[in-house]
Amino acid sequence: MLVLITYDVNTEDAAGRKRLRQIAKQCVNYGQRVQNSVFECNIDAAQYRMLQARLCAIMDPERDSLRFYNLGNKYQSRIEHFGVKPGYDSEGLLMI
Amino acid sequence: MLVLITYDVNTEDAAGRKRLRQIAKQCVNYGQRVQNSVFECNIDAAQYRMLQARLCAIMDPERDSLRFYNLGNKYQSRIEHFGVKPGYDSEGLLMI
Repeated sequence: MLVLITYDVNTEDAAGRKRLRQIAKQCVNYGQRVQNSVFECNIDAAQYRMLQARLCAIMDPERDSLRFYNLGNKYQSRIEHFGVKPGYDSEGLLMI
Repeated sequence: MLVLITYDVNTEDAAGRKRLRQIAKQCVNYGQRVQNSVFECNIDAAQYRMLQARLCAIMDPERDSLRFYNLGNKYQSRIEHFGVKPGYDSEGLLMI
């Protein structure tokens, strides 16, 4: 299933940027970065729970916000994109 | 149906911040801002097309990225949130 993960963190702060890098590193093991703080991961239910636990351990719950959206297995028709394509390669991410 | 809208723009730039404010203004007519550049809108298919056209007119397609995810009508069980709750009230947005 496709899980969309959105992460809200203040990246003007070095510690915030570090947390975003760590979140990205975990997410791209299972998918790709589609926007600066939006990730799409193709995972099963067990991987979902594991990834969620890891990301929650990285985030600062007093300052950051992390949302997960389960788009299910038939997600292709649910997504539309406009504008520039993602090109986040600094973490070895896929170009789409 | 619930449509999730994610907007990637460089907000270090004044013009980028202005575009984000304009995107937010359109989105909150139909829903709420759940993260800095993530919006959830409860709309029907006609409103979806209209909102999409408006947002595409605001964005800079050479610099920004706009993604739409249709979560359907049974979306409650698809969403999980961790960390701070959104409190974007500068545009008269809902607190959740």
